[in-house]
Amino acid sequence: MNAAALKQTICEQLETRYDEMVSLRRHFHQHPELSFQEKETAAFIASYYEALGIPIRTNVGGGGVLAYIEGGQPGPVIALRADFDALPIQDEKDVPYRSAVPGVMHACGHDGHTATLLVLARVLHENASRLKGKLVMIHQHAEEYSPGGAKPMIEDGCLDGVDAIFGTHLWATEPLGTVQYRTGPIMAAADRFTITINGKGGHGAQPHKTKDAVLIGSQIVSALQHIVSRRLDPTQPAVISTGSFLAENSFNVIADKAVLIGTARSFSEDVRTLIEKEIEHVVKGICLMHGAFYDYSYERGYPPVCNHPEETAFLAEIARRTDGVERVAESELQMGGEDFSYYLQHVKGTFFFTGARPENPQHAYPHHHPKFDIHEKAMLIAAKVMANAALSYQEQGEASAAAAEV
Amino acid sequence: MNAAALKQTICEQLETRYDEMVSLRRHFHQHPELSFQEKETAAFIASYYEALGIPIRTNVGGGGVLAYIEGGQPGPVIALRADFDALPIQDEKDVPYRSAVPGVMHACGHDGHTATLLVLARVLHENASRLKGKLVMIHQHAEEYSPGGAKPMIEDGCLDGVDAIFGTHLWATEPLGTVQYRTGPIMAAADRFTITINGKGGHGAQPHKTKDAVLIGSQIVSALQHIVSRRLDPTQPAVISTGSFLAENSFNVIADKAVLIGTARSFSEDVRTLIEKEIEHVVKGICLMHGAFYDYSYERGYPPVCNHPEETAFLAEIARRTDGVERVAESELQMGGEDFSYYLQHVKGTFFFTGARPENPQHAYPHHHPKFDIHEKAMLIAAKVMANAALSYQEQGEASAAAAEV
Amino acid sequence: MNAAALKQTICEQLETRYDEMVSLRRHFHQHPELSFQEKETAAFIASYYEALGIPIRTNVGGGGVLAYIEGGQPGPVIALRADFDALPIQDEKDVPYRSAVPGVMHACGHDGHTATLLVLARVLHENASRLKGKLVMIHQHAEEYSPGGAKPMIEDGCLDGVDAIFGTHLWATEPLGTVQYRTGPIMAAADRFTITINGKGGHGAQPHKTKDAVLIGSQIVSALQHIVSRRLDPTQPAVISTGSFLAENSFNVIADKAVLIGTARSFSEDVRTLIEKEIEHVVKGICLMHGAFYDYSYERGYPPVCNHPEETAFLAEIARRTDGVERVAESELQMGGEDFSYYLQHVKGTFFFTGARPENPQHAYPHHHPKFDIHEKAMLIAAKVMANAALSYQEQGEASAAAAEV
Amino acid sequence: MNAAALKQTICEQLETRYDEMVSLRRHFHQHPELSFQEKETAAFIASYYEALGIPIRTNVGGGGVLAYIEGGQPGPVIALRADFDALPIQDEKDVPYRSAVPGVMHACGHDGHTATLLVLARVLHENASRLKGKLVMIHQHAEEYSPGGAKPMIEDGCLDGVDAIFGTHLWATEPLGTVQYRTGPIMAAADRFTITINGKGGHGAQPHKTKDAVLIGSQIVSALQHIVSRRLDPTQPAVISTGSFLAENSFNVIADKAVLIGTARSFSEDVRTLIEKEIEHVVKGICLMHGAFYDYSYERGYPPVCNHPEETAFLAEIARRTDGVERVAESELQMGGEDFSYYLQHVKGTFFFTGARPENPQHAYPHHHPKFDIHEKAMLIAAKVMANAALSYQEQGEASAAAAEV
Repeated sequence: MNAAALKQTICEQLETRYDEMVSLRRHFHQHPELSFQEKETAAFIASYYEALGIPIRTNVGGGGVLAYIEGGQPGPVIALRADFDALPIQDEKDVPYRSAVPGVMHACGHDGHTATLLVLARVLHENASRLKGKLVMIHQHAEEYSPGGAKPMIEDGCLDGVDAIFGTHLWATEPLGTVQYRTGPIMAAADRFTITINGKGGHGAQPHKTKDAVLIGSQIVSALQHIVSRRLDPTQPAVISTGSFLAENSFNVIADKAVLIGTARSFSEDVRTLIEKEIEHVVKGICLMHGAFYDYSYERGYPPVCNHPEETAFLAEIARRTDGVERVAESELQMGGEDFSYYLQHVKGTFFFTGARPENPQHAYPHHHPKFDIHEKAMLIAAKVMANAALSYQEQGEASAAAAEV
Repeated sequence: MNAAALKQTICEQLETRYDEMVSLRRHFHQHPELSFQEKETAAFIASYYEALGIPIRTNVGGGGVLAYIEGGQPGPVIALRADFDALPIQDEKDVPYRSAVPGVMHACGHDGHTATLLVLARVLHENASRLKGKLVMIHQHAEEYSPGGAKPMIEDGCLDGVDAIFGTHLWATEPLGTVQYRTGPIMAAADRFTITINGKGGHGAQPHKTKDAVLIGSQIVSALQHIVSRRLDPTQPAVISTGSFLAENSFNVIADKAVLIGTARSFSEDVRTLIEKEIEHVVKGICLMHGAFYDYSYERGYPPVCNHPEETAFLAEIARRTDGVERVAESELQMGGEDFSYYLQHVKGTFFFTGARPENPQHAYPHHHPKFDIHEKAMLIAAKVMANAALSYQEQGEASAAAAEV
Repeated sequence: MNAAALKQTICEQLETRYDEMVSLRRHFHQHPELSFQEKETAAFIASYYEALGIPIRTNVGGGGVLAYIEGGQPGPVIALRADFDALPIQDEKDVPYRSAVPGVMHACGHDGHTATLLVLARVLHENASRLKGKLVMIHQHAEEYSPGGAKPMIEDGCLDGVDAIFGTHLWATEPLGTVQYRTGPIMAAADRFTITINGKGGHGAQPHKTKDAVLIGSQIVSALQHIVSRRLDPTQPAVISTGSFLAENSFNVIADKAVLIGTARSFSEDVRTLIEKEIEHVVKGICLMHGAFYDYSYERGYPPVCNHPEETAFLAEIARRTDGVERVAESELQMGGEDFSYYLQHVKGTFFFTGARPENPQHAYPHHHPKFDIHEKAMLIAAKVMANAALSYQEQGEASAAAAEV
Repeated sequence: MNAAALKQTICEQLETRYDEMVSLRRHFHQHPELSFQEKETAAFIASYYEALGIPIRTNVGGGGVLAYIEGGQPGPVIALRADFDALPIQDEKDVPYRSAVPGVMHACGHDGHTATLLVLARVLHENASRLKGKLVMIHQHAEEYSPGGAKPMIEDGCLDGVDAIFGTHLWATEPLGTVQYRTGPIMAAADRFTITINGKGGHGAQPHKTKDAVLIGSQIVSALQHIVSRRLDPTQPAVISTGSFLAENSFNVIADKAVLIGTARSFSEDVRTLIEKEIEHVVKGICLMHGAFYDYSYERGYPPVCNHPEETAFLAEIARRTDGVERVAESELQMGGEDFSYYLQHVKGTFFFTGARPENPQHAYPHHHPKFDIHEKAMLIAAKVMANAALSYQEQGEASAAAAEV
């Protein structure tokens, strides 16, 4: 059986196992776990592999799972990665597989990533004897919450011996059949800031004896807007979002304290540094105005995801030749962050997007939305592209090895 | 024993029982209960009276306690009122009697009011045979939280047969020895507003796909400031305070929803109506700007406390002649609200302030502050003024009755 | 002829001369002059008196005119004051007597004050032989613009020998027939602030290389609102208004500089001092936020107008007995300022309001409005009340003098 | 003499005439004229050509000047363009050639563009017999102020018969010796918006009777910030700047009206349309909040400058081989607008930047800054690059023509 035939077989087997993918994904969807708390999910993944007799390592980097598929022939080691944590969002969908955990939800598609990788691993395992090289299935915990799971998994050896890595994100804003690639930066640096305003509390009827932390916080949130609009170079994409504003008091008590928590996104170290400073200028100025105090911290999260040029071109070419892929296009810059960036700092590879917009436009919501859902068929496409990429890369590796030998 | 001697005796007995007042007050301070949840406090009050054999009614108006002291001779019926609920504030004082309940605190002095009235009742009870008329001790629940306890207690008959009512507030911003009165409006109408912003949630890195409820709420809090500064007649005192701002999300999720809760204070129905409308103009305009939606409710709380002129002049005169009172002065308008207003809509009476600023200026904090405390000696002064007022009013009543009979 | 008959005669003569009042007022209305620039107006006033042979002093305190009416008999010296400057407002009324000077307008009624006083002087002059004492007609320039004309006129001797002073303001928000008085503070301290923001200019397309003075100024104007709403005691009336915002540039140039000019009103020295400080806190905080610089000046304008109790009670009583007056009522606190305050720091007297609301409600606009107008009949009432007040005060003076002589 | 020698000769002659360039540039610098008012400048340009006997057309498209240099041999027609209007900025430099016109200044380098083109024309004219084709020198008025001079000059025939056009901008933020090119969009769409707020004026002490246009305008300027920060896709560069805020009143008059004028920059029609709408959302929402009215207009200015790929590559190659050019690099996107865009909609060509940062870093200011200046040597480099580009393009054209003939 030649390489093309093998890939064809694998794709067919993936189709046969599509129902399993769906049922796995829905299982995860119903049982989401927050970042760094994904015990049941990791255990489920481990037991899936154990049932198939696939060797694994658990608790990698504190919570990840690795599965190893040893090919029948020597060749490059390819890592494929899927993340498996969920978000602190209340699922508002009305579907049978809706989250059973109040306030926690797979609102980013990691359930689908995991189901895709599990079934792909199963099919590759069944064809292991014909594979030229090894495969490492990286099931990563805690992608949504910096410092993330990628870094500790790498430190714990998940990339040891790996030659290249591929990863995808199911992308609910693009239609089924689309694959998007981009060389160089594709996803943003994702930082986190926390501002605590220490005003002076008091009776709601005596504002002049207080320093109203709710007003101070509100003026800060408004003024933060002008960092992007006025302080940063408009040709350098950046975002500053305050996700949380917390000042809980009796209605007639003026707040002593307010806590603002948010994220900043950018694509360069300079912009990152400027944002960090400018947020403090805003906070300092407004607190001075009121005679209030503050604590401010800016935690650098994931660096930008920077795809390697050759692997990206390779993946785009593979995608064009994969069954079910109708459109391969350059991705726009994505303001989201991803700790896939760490893998790409260690080995060659690329991260791509697999279109997963639900068929019914009324079910299409952006990532992190309480009604987020995916087109489940996208899992099949993602699995095929990753299978083809891994196998072709291994063939290619063999070819170069052969060439090198000459 | 003549009237003056009786009052003298009662004042001396109050002094003797000052330690009990302090110990009762500290007990309440350590065991605060939120409005409408004051079961233990009400039970404690009831058992105090029961132990003394003073007849009571419990669960009045849903949570209040009434105690009746029947004088040995006929005469007017005087009500004295103390409230006994606490606030949702974390006690930050470092004192032995600090609140034992996390997040709940007697930060307004109601513990002192209650201790004062209990000990005063005990002393009056001991002298009951010499009293000319009856006394009703109104221990009111839920003053801090509209619709309050006064209204249901009145509906449940607490003022039945009552000729006049007196009440005081320990006032931590005035020095010990001060009594403050004011004819007509003395405390504000205290209303409550709730604004729920229904934006559109999403990923923190994709603001353009969301309607950021934290920003919308922040712009509303800032813009609310111009109602007092621009929309209201500057000669009409008014306050609008947003006490709570709640939008809790993961740092990288843009908020779908934010809830603002606050209070509005004013001294006239026109201003109240204007504030209600203008808040909605602000909310509507800013939501329109963002294409977001909102829910808005404005709940009218207590009406202004309006003291009756004769009883106020009478009380001021009594205070001037009370031992321990060093300064009797007209109070400024107080922006705080009080459901004592309801009692004064039914019977004649007056509400006054008893200076209670802690001796150590470092312990002096405004009402509703996490470090609020009182000068406990103020309880003694409050008790004496109320005793003198009640007894003098009864004598006077007898005199007028006698005059009327002629 | 007794005193009552004299007053009756004077009132009748005033009525006869009502048309002259109207025509004088309309003349002034058509030819308004800005504060400290009222040359033509002063010359007109002077020539009016000269034609009647009434002795005058011109250029008093830099621009005022004094006219002296010597009574036939000795007695107190009474000053009556009218101001004659106009405002930098474009007249938008469609009336024949509309301002002929672009951008300048009698939008506060000073034209009426002056016409009233001129005709009153003429009538009093005609009856001079029967007057008991002297009258000083104070035609004051520059009331609208601090430091005003009153102060230099006083320094230049306009109150020398004066026993009491009366002044009125035609009040377009009250109906004809109303006279309003108030003991103690009646009009506010009127201060002026100027904020110059020194940002950094640049190309409109490169905000990150600038410090945008228009944005900085805008954030300041918004934040100034919270001084009244949060920093000042809500029971102390105060106003802070930014009247001018100037930053004129090409549309695609980011402003280097913006100038904000405004007024602050209050009724106490403490609040004045607090406002002065808090404005700087706002400016400093917001400039710090942007790394911009500022100049700030706060110029104290007129002190509050504080009416003398006896003269105020006297005037109210006189007004009640004056023909045409239908309602004499206590005035509310007025947030406007007036340099009449200076006269009252030197001699006894009172300042009152004469209702002057136009008959047609569609012509009724607030003072300083581009369509401001008055009910001209109010001039007649004002003249009568002032005549009666002056004559009665002189009689009274004579009586006390007689009493003193005994 | 071959082509290379001709270019060499021309470059040497340009160097010889560098002093003239400087003196011409300084003349223009001292006598700046605002867009559409550049009569003296146009007359000066015309007389320069007339003195040399170079044929011209004046008043082209309402204010431009065209000069024609007819080569001795047939060949392509190349247009070179320089703009000559100045800006409404006060010159704050302390140099002998400082602007002599108060409030008007060459703060963008158009003086340098014009001097460059004049001297280049003179030198080309002296070598005309050896040129293969024609040259059209386009001296364009009114680049700074939409609708600009380019459009009417094109309509008036300035591009008739032209085969290609080149233009440069002296770029004061890049060092001398730099040339920057970019294929496709290089400069932004530059639109203009005007917002007139119609509030309700009144006395500064009575805000509640007004609708304060200064506050409304300020809230709008602040809220406009969130369009870029929240409503637009962060990966799409855009700028919204409010350059002018005008509300001039007496300090104690609350503004009836405020006028905001600004610019919006973007690189796509979609973003342009979104900005136009979102500005109105902000204005409408804030006016609704205050019950005020508004007028809003959004005038589309110049479209983005989109360079033609072949001419851009050609120019970059020419620049690399030009004496004095040390660095040829891709330009970043520039947020500034340019009506050079219109020329490129009609003929092939490219627009490039010539580094002109003053040697002394203390004299280096951004374009449109009151202290803006250029490195005058940059004019020489610009002239050489344009000469080489024109001549090489003509040779090339001849070659293709020759090829075509075969």
